[in-house]
Amino acid sequence: MKNKSLFKLQCPAPKFDFDIITLAHGSGGLLTNKLLESGVFDLLKNEKLDKHHDGAMLEFNGPVAFSTDSFVVSPIVFPGGDIGELAVNGTVNDVAMCGAIPQYLSLGFILEEGLPISQFWDILVSIKYAAEKAGVQIVTGDTKVVDKGKGDKIFINTTGIGPVHLKANIDIANIKAGDKIIASNSIATHGIAILSVREGLEFETSIESDTCNLNHLTAELLDKFGEKIHLFRDPTRGGVAATLNEISKERNMGILLNNGAIPVENQVKAACEILGLDPLYAANEGVFMAFVSADVADKTVEMLHRHPESANAAIIGTVVDGHHGKVLITNQMGGTRVVHMPVGEQLPRIC
Amino acid sequence: MKNKSLFKLQCPAPKFDFDIITLAHGSGGLLTNKLLESGVFDLLKNEKLDKHHDGAMLEFNGPVAFSTDSFVVSPIVFPGGDIGELAVNGTVNDVAMCGAIPQYLSLGFILEEGLPISQFWDILVSIKYAAEKAGVQIVTGDTKVVDKGKGDKIFINTTGIGPVHLKANIDIANIKAGDKIIASNSIATHGIAILSVREGLEFETSIESDTCNLNHLTAELLDKFGEKIHLFRDPTRGGVAATLNEISKERNMGILLNNGAIPVENQVKAACEILGLDPLYAANEGVFMAFVSADVADKTVEMLHRHPESANAAIIGTVVDGHHGKVLITNQMGGTRVVHMPVGEQLPRIC
Repeated sequence: MKNKSLFKLQCPAPKFDFDIITLAHGSGGLLTNKLLESGVFDLLKNEKLDKHHDGAMLEFNGPVAFSTDSFVVSPIVFPGGDIGELAVNGTVNDVAMCGAIPQYLSLGFILEEGLPISQFWDILVSIKYAAEKAGVQIVTGDTKVVDKGKGDKIFINTTGIGPVHLKANIDIANIKAGDKIIASNSIATHGIAILSVREGLEFETSIESDTCNLNHLTAELLDKFGEKIHLFRDPTRGGVAATLNEISKERNMGILLNNGAIPVENQVKAACEILGLDPLYAANEGVFMAFVSADVADKTVEMLHRHPESANAAIIGTVVDGHHGKVLITNQMGGTRVVHMPVGEQLPRIC
Repeated sequence: MKNKSLFKLQCPAPKFDFDIITLAHGSGGLLTNKLLESGVFDLLKNEKLDKHHDGAMLEFNGPVAFSTDSFVVSPIVFPGGDIGELAVNGTVNDVAMCGAIPQYLSLGFILEEGLPISQFWDILVSIKYAAEKAGVQIVTGDTKVVDKGKGDKIFINTTGIGPVHLKANIDIANIKAGDKIIASNSIATHGIAILSVREGLEFETSIESDTCNLNHLTAELLDKFGEKIHLFRDPTRGGVAATLNEISKERNMGILLNNGAIPVENQVKAACEILGLDPLYAANEGVFMAFVSADVADKTVEMLHRHPESANAAIIGTVVDGHHGKVLITNQMGGTRVVHMPVGEQLPRIC
């Protein structure tokens, strides 16, 4: 796979007849067709992409995972990515978290009148880049336009589908006391990257969003460890705290986290300290939590360390018999505190 | 199936802890859970609805159709329906137009901060009503909230999937000269219903949107006529004019419409005359066009006449050898005029 900048250079914008998106581009008429035919279809082309039909024809034989997400992140371009990449990776990862192999995505745009075509093109190129990296095809789509002031530049829905991995048996019911909890990489990076560019909150940093596809990693783990992998879950909105609280509550089991083991990049840690934020509550877009049998935990981490997007993988905690429905974390003094479910919004429109 | 008002009465809103949607309801934290657990999951429940996972697990064996649509209609409640029904019916119909049996839908909300919970509940009930009527299950979803002034009450994405009908061979390549074109019901009703309530354009009318699910009709036609049905297409945005132009251009064939045969309700016709609109360009949400072998055309119409939602079905035109890529319509004098592809927007945010 080429790097992102090179990839983008190789997808120059075609010559459009218009500079901005207008309501007519969402009309279903000639201007909708012009928009799609003038580059969108060519850019995203594959043999299944439904050009002139109401849907795409796919074929499956067996169980599949099906997942949807809408993306409303603000700003639409942020350090390390943009809403296009996020929309592909987010849904790819949700399908992967089910123990499945994401294959196909639908793509629904809600554009705000006045969006510069050049900006729309950049996002389309990001979508293509992310889809190629993840190995998924965009097979059907929809474009709506809302009047200026009734949207915010661009919202994207992606819905993904793909067959369940043959060796997967991912189920929250499979978690048992003693299972090790692995974070696939350093946490809180996406949340802090977005925060760093929000109006009024800017500070000097080179923190980049971790947005990336996780499906190749989860497939490799399933190939190797099969049913020993009990659960995957990606801690996006609400962060690690929300994800682990949901799991511990649903199973009424305790989760004990080792504070010192949780990977957080130094500059993310520093930013959290300045802002008074807890990295456990910040959003991630390129990290998953794996609940695995204790006997494969070290090997899982070892395998993850071989890939740049999971270079900082670590065992961060254990499922325990007591503390029913609670997430606890050890502190530096050897005591523990409860990690509560986040109530409201640490940071709105993070994805 | 109960009627809509009765159905709605039987789904009273639960007691919510809050009156309006706030940004925190899209946070992924406790308030997101409260919103979902306080009624949404219960209302839409089915054995596949993914409550606590990143996606739903489905199973298919063979070809499936997959289609997505975002809905941004304004106003969100209109004569004859609301955005919730439209979002279910729209995607159900797109899957049906592929010759498939819609089975499952995903549901993605983009809510604007400040949306009254009571309004959200009403739309959820409409979604349930429409899903039950169509016989589809909502199996996975997502809720995002954007700040006030960055959205418009509620946008909905639905993505649908279902197996292709065993007797279906729907393909634009199957159309041939001599095929009859059938409109399943009176056209232009949805467009004019929306127009009738748009600000500044209100006029006295009892015209109601035709939004309804078409999948039972198309399945019955396929059961009976199989490969004699060459193409289904629903003329939504851009109306009959856009749909037929796309088809005639793609196949480089002529389409000849019989003006006198096109079913339009009298009050819709009157409204179009007052407003200077051509019904051929107005949106439909409960009408499909079927291209069928001439030998089954009359029987198709006969069958459609047995159902209230297609009581006005009619043969409206024929595919012809000449007039490559053009749609023509006969006028009352016996001459013909060209029906052009709509250029821009007759009416924005119609669906």
